[in-house]
Amino acid sequence: MVVLAGGVGAAKLLAGLVRAHPPEDLLAVVNTADDVLLHGLHVSPDLDTVVYTLAGAVNPDTGWGLAAETWQAMDALDRYGGITWFRLGDRDLATHLYRTHRLGQGADLAAVTAEIAAAWGLKLAVLPVTNNRIETRVTTADEGEIGFQDYFVRRRHDVAVSAVRVAGAARARPVPGLIEALGAARLIVIAPSNPIVSIGPVLEVPGVYRAVADRRDAVVAVSPIVGGAALKGPADRLMRELGHESSAVGVARLYREVAATLVIDETDAGLADEVEKAGVSCLVAPTVMDGVESATALARVVLGCAPATAPA
Amino acid sequence: MVVLAGGVGAAKLLAGLVRAHPPEDLLAVVNTADDVLLHGLHVSPDLDTVVYTLAGAVNPDTGWGLAAETWQAMDALDRYGGITWFRLGDRDLATHLYRTHRLGQGADLAAVTAEIAAAWGLKLAVLPVTNNRIETRVTTADEGEIGFQDYFVRRRHDVAVSAVRVAGAARARPVPGLIEALGAARLIVIAPSNPIVSIGPVLEVPGVYRAVADRRDAVVAVSPIVGGAALKGPADRLMRELGHESSAVGVARLYREVAATLVIDETDAGLADEVEKAGVSCLVAPTVMDGVESATALARVVLGCAPATAPA
Repeated sequence: MVVLAGGVGAAKLLAGLVRAHPPEDLLAVVNTADDVLLHGLHVSPDLDTVVYTLAGAVNPDTGWGLAAETWQAMDALDRYGGITWFRLGDRDLATHLYRTHRLGQGADLAAVTAEIAAAWGLKLAVLPVTNNRIETRVTTADEGEIGFQDYFVRRRHDVAVSAVRVAGAARARPVPGLIEALGAARLIVIAPSNPIVSIGPVLEVPGVYRAVADRRDAVVAVSPIVGGAALKGPADRLMRELGHESSAVGVARLYREVAATLVIDETDAGLADEVEKAGVSCLVAPTVMDGVESATALARVVLGCAPATAPA
Repeated sequence: MVVLAGGVGAAKLLAGLVRAHPPEDLLAVVNTADDVLLHGLHVSPDLDTVVYTLAGAVNPDTGWGLAAETWQAMDALDRYGGITWFRLGDRDLATHLYRTHRLGQGADLAAVTAEIAAAWGLKLAVLPVTNNRIETRVTTADEGEIGFQDYFVRRRHDVAVSAVRVAGAARARPVPGLIEALGAARLIVIAPSNPIVSIGPVLEVPGVYRAVADRRDAVVAVSPIVGGAALKGPADRLMRELGHESSAVGVARLYREVAATLVIDETDAGLADEVEKAGVSCLVAPTVMDGVESATALARVVLGCAPATAPA
């Protein structure tokens, strides 16, 4: 079973899936286009959010970073006028120190991620979608094209966006084993992550979109848009500004070629017909994960979408 | 006035000098051959020791690192089996994050060091001896040639050494302005740092040894060897193993071409004649700096060595 994942929403669903399904049978394929080089360190926000959440170590208030974190390094960095808008906690820093060290030794991101996940005792496989550098670039009205974290954190995604592209995607190769895993998976889940800047880059790595579309009948997506709004982050605004409808129906239209089924929230039950008209089977369920129980319940709904027979 | 400096001993003397002399007239030229790339970060131990000490922020127990430091990042790094033998405190990490960021932007080490010193409110100039990468390499009996911090920290300099070299020295250029500053200085001080691995690399940067030797009459060194032993670190053992006498006399012989005067400790008063026989004027004074008062007293002794007339 393969889960295409972004950050917080995906991490929550995965935390439910590992309770409803043998984790050894789960492969989380995580967006790396919001990775950022900061202070010389390789920071992988989505990978870390997934790992910290599954380890039960995530900050429950933010959904990212570590619980009971301290901020001595960032506070000290203020003295130098260093970059502190991207807050790296002291314990979180260790992850970036380790990752940067290992990458500098020549290890690839997949190997380093496996080491980090193992260190936290995770039993599922967590992989970056690619070992190559891909980078979401956002064209804003006032500053032109800026990096994703510049947009997302520094600007707090409070700015009009006219275009999004994934730099490096054309030259990237999917992480070894990914295309085979997609071909063999009983079920492929598209997590309730931002379709434009989280799932988009995953599907844009050459070969991935085709491999998922080829398994369309085994693909279920969970809408990250509930009641027309993103539960977290700028998915709703981005969808609107890039010409999509900010609704479960808009999500269905984005995913129609790759997913046979879309799970939408009860709030949006009235949209089920329209989702079906977009060519996607619609399942209505509670999708807001405010704890591990609701996440596990949603995971069971998702797992129920697996076709009765394994792929040939 | 120019001070050639290593780490802890030099920092203590500098803390005395800024109390006995206008700091605006002081230039500390600091060894960078023990700099190390760790976790992708550029760590400059001697520069940081000098800055933290002069800022009154140094850990008084160790003589390096910051007072009231926390160790969350290093403790968290243990989870991954990362490199933790070189302990980087959380607040100290900010210095390395900032330095690495600025070097990555293309700033040179001199500019970054000036920014860091200014951020701590220092009034004297602190410069690396070179903007180029130089690296002390130590040949050990059991592991062959290893990096300096590998020898100094990981092995706790508890290993026999057969050779020391400064990789990169031949290609390095002295930091801009250094040769001119040495030519114009009223007084040049060789701090009580390790002659082999702290002052040695400073003098080995092409042009520096010659520029100091040309001003020999204006050069005073302070012996780091007291009663035959180093006050801190492996200077005594290194001197012995590399064929020098581990005493103030051995120091005099090492510096005879570059320094007209050597300040030795009262403990070694009996060696004054032998120091003079080595061709160096000998001053006997208390050289053990156990606080800012004794450092200031030693600074006054050193300042008293300035020739009566400025250079032509």
